[in-house]
Amino acid sequence: MTTGVRRRMGVEERRQQLIGVALELFSQRSPDDVSIDEIATAAGISRPLVYHYFPGKLSLYEAALKRAADDLSDRFVEAREGPLGTRLLRVMRRYFDFVDDHGPGFAALMRGGPAVGSSATNALIDSVRQAAYDQILSHLRVEKPPARLELVIRSWISLAESTALIWLDGRRIPRGELEVQLVHDFAALAAVSAAHDEEMAALLRHMLKDEPHDGPFTDLAARLIALAS
Amino acid sequence: MTTGVRRRMGVEERRQQLIGVALELFSQRSPDDVSIDEIATAAGISRPLVYHYFPGKLSLYEAALKRAADDLSDRFVEAREGPLGTRLLRVMRRYFDFVDDHGPGFAALMRGGPAVGSSATNALIDSVRQAAYDQILSHLRVEKPPARLELVIRSWISLAESTALIWLDGRRIPRGELEVQLVHDFAALAAVSAAHDEEMAALLRHMLKDEPHDGPFTDLAARLIALAS
Repeated sequence: MTTGVRRRMGVEERRQQLIGVALELFSQRSPDDVSIDEIATAAGISRPLVYHYFPGKLSLYEAALKRAADDLSDRFVEAREGPLGTRLLRVMRRYFDFVDDHGPGFAALMRGGPAVGSSATNALIDSVRQAAYDQILSHLRVEKPPARLELVIRSWISLAESTALIWLDGRRIPRGELEVQLVHDFAALAAVSAAHDEEMAALLRHMLKDEPHDGPFTDLAARLIALAS
Repeated sequence: MTTGVRRRMGVEERRQQLIGVALELFSQRSPDDVSIDEIATAAGISRPLVYHYFPGKLSLYEAALKRAADDLSDRFVEAREGPLGTRLLRVMRRYFDFVDDHGPGFAALMRGGPAVGSSATNALIDSVRQAAYDQILSHLRVEKPPARLELVIRSWISLAESTALIWLDGRRIPRGELEVQLVHDFAALAAVSAAHDEEMAALLRHMLKDEPHDGPFTDLAARLIALAS
């Protein structure tokens, strides 16, 4: 490779290279504004050759989205040890790393990008949400979630999405603050649900019983007490 | 009109009739599953005549969506008197009335329906969100919202959307409970933000200062205190 002779790539290797190039460009500008010509130039190949590997921009976009979705889902995986609040905070840090890295591509996708409405794209977005949901359930050690717990988790996931999107629009609040805040929001939404339902109250007590004095949930309680006084 | 002779409708009147018929069908089944033939039959006119008023299903869908969006935005308007929590609760009741009435159409739209990704559709959805945002700001009597307040309001609006969508999927939780819960969620998200920021804390104190002893915010506080003990 140091001889200056361009090595011929295999089909799968070339596809992976093009996906990587596309994701890099989508992290700088909305996919709508990135042409196949630019992707070809950045990959150092001709435009027709791009079409040899991907029949159209949509198929390249979907392949890039698939890789990004797998990457994001992997970031939800967290060891089942230590306080729940601390685990969730680590996941939030990795989530914002992802959002930070993929800014324009993430915003375009979630706001209605070029491939939105395609069933493949919707299915991918849903699979990432489902991965987040499954991880949270498994950390809570709940196998058959009651409807109210499912609502808290799924609606909090959408809160995390909208918080990230609003953050991307101007980045006017430090992301570290939002990472902690989303952990607190989870506890707050669970507490509101628990305030209405005994089964949720029992779950919340179970969730909080191992929280340390310097963990994020205890931090929230202390902040709320300070606020109320 | 009682003679059995069918009156000839004007163009705008006929368009409004078709929009009404379409909305009625979309309230029973997803717009994807409703054909122009069915709309024509329900309106008592021929299929080609439908196309005379709307060039295609997308244009009829967008017109129906426009009427539904105006209807929903109107429901956000609430007199600026009485405690904030009570006002928000009345809006939540009207919001769930709307969601209840338009179930399948609402779900299909928000989950990625036939016209999703069209810029007209996205602009309409955004205009409804903006109407909700503007109403809340005006009730809070805030003209230039700090970034953290904007985040709380906009992310709560997305929470209200996802809560309604999850409710529609099986209706496993009584809607009245969710209406109250969303009011409590708003207070909870504002409180989490206030726990991190002095300006938000001042706003929250202002928000809560006129709350009555039997209002929804006081109800939440009492429930949380009971839960903690």
